[in-house]
Amino acid sequence: MINAAKREVPDFIDGYGRVRPFAGAAVDIGEVSRLSVKVTPARPGSDKVLGSVGEAIAACGLADGMTISFHHCLRNGDQVLNRVLEAVAEAGLRDMTVSATALFPVHAPLVGHMEKGVVTGLYTNYLSGPVAEAVSRGVLKRPAVMQTHGGRVRAIEAGDLPIDVAFVAASSCDAAGNMNGVEGPSAFGVMGYSQTDARYARRTVAVTDHLVPHPACPIEIGQEYVDYVIPVDRIGDARGIVSGTTRVTEDPVGLGIAALAAGVVEASGLMKDGFSFQTGAGRISLAVAACLREAMQRKGIQGSFASGGITAYTVEMLEEGLFRTLLDAQCFDLRAVESLRTDRRHQGMSIGMYGNPHNKGAVVNYLDIMILGATEIDRDFNVNVTTGSDGVLMGGSGGHTDTAAGAKLAIVVTRLARKRYPGVVDRVTTVTTPGETIDVLVTEAGVAVNPRRQDLLVRLRDAGLPVVTIGELIEKARGIAGVPESPPWGEKIVAVMEYRDGTVIDLVRQIRPSATG
Amino acid sequence: MINAAKREVPDFIDGYGRVRPFAGAAVDIGEVSRLSVKVTPARPGSDKVLGSVGEAIAACGLADGMTISFHHCLRNGDQVLNRVLEAVAEAGLRDMTVSATALFPVHAPLVGHMEKGVVTGLYTNYLSGPVAEAVSRGVLKRPAVMQTHGGRVRAIEAGDLPIDVAFVAASSCDAAGNMNGVEGPSAFGVMGYSQTDARYARRTVAVTDHLVPHPACPIEIGQEYVDYVIPVDRIGDARGIVSGTTRVTEDPVGLGIAALAAGVVEASGLMKDGFSFQTGAGRISLAVAACLREAMQRKGIQGSFASGGITAYTVEMLEEGLFRTLLDAQCFDLRAVESLRTDRRHQGMSIGMYGNPHNKGAVVNYLDIMILGATEIDRDFNVNVTTGSDGVLMGGSGGHTDTAAGAKLAIVVTRLARKRYPGVVDRVTTVTTPGETIDVLVTEAGVAVNPRRQDLLVRLRDAGLPVVTIGELIEKARGIAGVPESPPWGEKIVAVMEYRDGTVIDLVRQIRPSATG
Repeated sequence: MINAAKREVPDFIDGYGRVRPFAGAAVDIGEVSRLSVKVTPARPGSDKVLGSVGEAIAACGLADGMTISFHHCLRNGDQVLNRVLEAVAEAGLRDMTVSATALFPVHAPLVGHMEKGVVTGLYTNYLSGPVAEAVSRGVLKRPAVMQTHGGRVRAIEAGDLPIDVAFVAASSCDAAGNMNGVEGPSAFGVMGYSQTDARYARRTVAVTDHLVPHPACPIEIGQEYVDYVIPVDRIGDARGIVSGTTRVTEDPVGLGIAALAAGVVEASGLMKDGFSFQTGAGRISLAVAACLREAMQRKGIQGSFASGGITAYTVEMLEEGLFRTLLDAQCFDLRAVESLRTDRRHQGMSIGMYGNPHNKGAVVNYLDIMILGATEIDRDFNVNVTTGSDGVLMGGSGGHTDTAAGAKLAIVVTRLARKRYPGVVDRVTTVTTPGETIDVLVTEAGVAVNPRRQDLLVRLRDAGLPVVTIGELIEKARGIAGVPESPPWGEKIVAVMEYRDGTVIDLVRQIRPSATG
Repeated sequence: MINAAKREVPDFIDGYGRVRPFAGAAVDIGEVSRLSVKVTPARPGSDKVLGSVGEAIAACGLADGMTISFHHCLRNGDQVLNRVLEAVAEAGLRDMTVSATALFPVHAPLVGHMEKGVVTGLYTNYLSGPVAEAVSRGVLKRPAVMQTHGGRVRAIEAGDLPIDVAFVAASSCDAAGNMNGVEGPSAFGVMGYSQTDARYARRTVAVTDHLVPHPACPIEIGQEYVDYVIPVDRIGDARGIVSGTTRVTEDPVGLGIAALAAGVVEASGLMKDGFSFQTGAGRISLAVAACLREAMQRKGIQGSFASGGITAYTVEMLEEGLFRTLLDAQCFDLRAVESLRTDRRHQGMSIGMYGNPHNKGAVVNYLDIMILGATEIDRDFNVNVTTGSDGVLMGGSGGHTDTAAGAKLAIVVTRLARKRYPGVVDRVTTVTTPGETIDVLVTEAGVAVNPRRQDLLVRLRDAGLPVVTIGELIEKARGIAGVPESPPWGEKIVAVMEYRDGTVIDLVRQIRPSATG
């Protein structure tokens, strides 16, 4: 069948199950039911501290075919996932499903576990590096399921993704399981990704390299949600939480795009006292923030909140009074961690509060302006941030799709082409975020407005901005980088891409062996 | 049948249902299941702010026979319960069940709603004043269900007490429903009682007299849990949160008991660096805190946490460095509210984290020392804080039963007799807290140790404390106040007392009309 993103999806996918096709971003589904959580009560005087991951595996009754979950608060500095999977393999377990909010190059050992059949299922919102390449090569037995940050929470809460054991990295934790991410040598900031798992998993295991006297202070996840505590030498390298994506571009073309995007924001009429704002962590996106900062200072505007992954840059805007508060689901650098620890206006939140489409009002719904990146964007304004134009997995939605769906003005900033690949195309290789939720595309060759937003088109034209059609941008990109080749895909489905409501928006197929030589 | 507290309970009670008899405090029940929560997702751009309680009643689809819940953060200053019930009556609704964490004299209008059949069911953890008297007179159609603070959370989470609509008083709230209790003219402190309801009710309605720009800061209950927001002129009188119970005794007998109790604590060996402590809000209990404060200063001891209802007194102990942190489920005075707002060591917690026996480790399980009051205590160390000796409802467990079950050392402090009623009796009028969870009784005539605690008996004797038997104390109390008469009860059951695990520990019967003249 053809879904609402014009992609063909089958009724049923082996290793995934029945497919609910994507039916549009704004489907009203009425009342939903949450999973009935299973809890094993703790008795007074019980001791939760175990000596090793292996002991926790035994204590939790982890068995073949179960699902274990991880979170990427430590990003490319994380050492918890690798350590746990090593113990899982040592315990002789098979056919496990890993649900990890994101996977980075540091998680390369997972490839070996996939090859050996220790891990045969994978749910993630973002993946890069060796694991991504391995999934594209078809190493994983079942198709990986790519979700959005909000969609993952929805799936867990709905019972679509039942977690047997959640392993939660804590930079500070006491023997009862009270934990936070702001104290200790591996402080990484908000535990936003772990909240849902801690509440919905059948068993929750805290892994910490900083065991503190009871009770921890502050308490971000409370002892009532934690079955076991494992002290380890290191949970990771906090310096690794600063990944390559969190630097502002210095490239003049990128800076030009950023300035143009800031012009779009100003012309939209949304930038006024009390407005809210988020930017992705791409280099151009961060440059837009720099431009808006200057505009807010110039006009004397104070926004209500900035949200998202928080960087030193956002913290500075808070401290300058440009925003009244920050809503932080993930700290992107150590300055953000320090601010979260000390500034009450800097508020942590769960990823569910941030982006779950099936709660009573996610923060993304309250965003005025969202700046997004794109690997590809097409004639229908569909965005791909999941695969390269070569069809190989190299990213994922994260919060891209969630914020686009919620924000009043979702702006994509991208160059017309990168190296030999066009960024603006007739049809994206894979649909991460549906075009109906994108309002504007800003490139170095002008601004294209989604035809659904005639109101915005008028405003941008009136402001004298260089408005063009998406067709013109596609032509120009083609002129620079040529017509992109179809990805060298075989038949096997290696990843099922779920929209935030759990419908299937697109598929990723195996890279033909001949293409990977 | 006779339950483990030696009380006769029937198999079935009309208007309550099947009875699970109390089987002891330490029953291991294995895995439990939580209620599958129903949620109506909010769409981007939806407006949650309604003009009146009546509008919220309509929007929530409130109908005859449903259950609505309230919390007593504002104690005897609360105006939300009365306001909502007035609107419920105006809407012509009948046969409603009210679940209120506690009821005070200010809630007298509820009696009229009970008489008219608007309200026919009641769940509460504590009740005093006109509502208590009315229930004892048999005004309520179905038996009231008396729970403990932790037991109520357990019941809601288990689906034993399904809430249709939770009305949550917020001293500060934004239009999306983010709220806290520390800002605004009616600031009352922690929203510990409301957390479970906000998460488990089919609909959650915030009622506030301080609507602030989005997003509120701090956020104690997040927008993802809130369906509607009702701005009103006043939610209550914050001065009313200081109830009569929160003053230290000045009576010399009471002070003597307190000093003796402090001696018991010192002799127990538990008062050392890192110990934890809670006291009830009774006058003698608070005097024990004063004695311990002095002892801690003298010995240079720093405790880990003090918990519970937090008073100015506890805050001073935090500020003096006598405790490393406070775990606060309820602010008993405005000094506590101010401390919670400004001191990061003063941590709020939910009542579930505090006392739910069926989670992975309630804070009460980590209490070393708990000081409790008693209206009556008997030969088996059973405690009554629910009815007077005259059999009339005048209180309830609150957290009494939860803390007794969790603490390493649960000390009851009470006078031998008050007015014409003995405090130490052969058999309490009603069993609120089972004797197996009480370790020591301290009176002005000496200290009685529960025979289960021979280890403690030795310690107290070695320390030269005036150890007597409970039988001796019963005799002395009889000498002062005589033999208590049996309460003038009829046959009708007016209240079912649930132990924290949902089993029935005792019953309260209707006061015979002749006795109420």
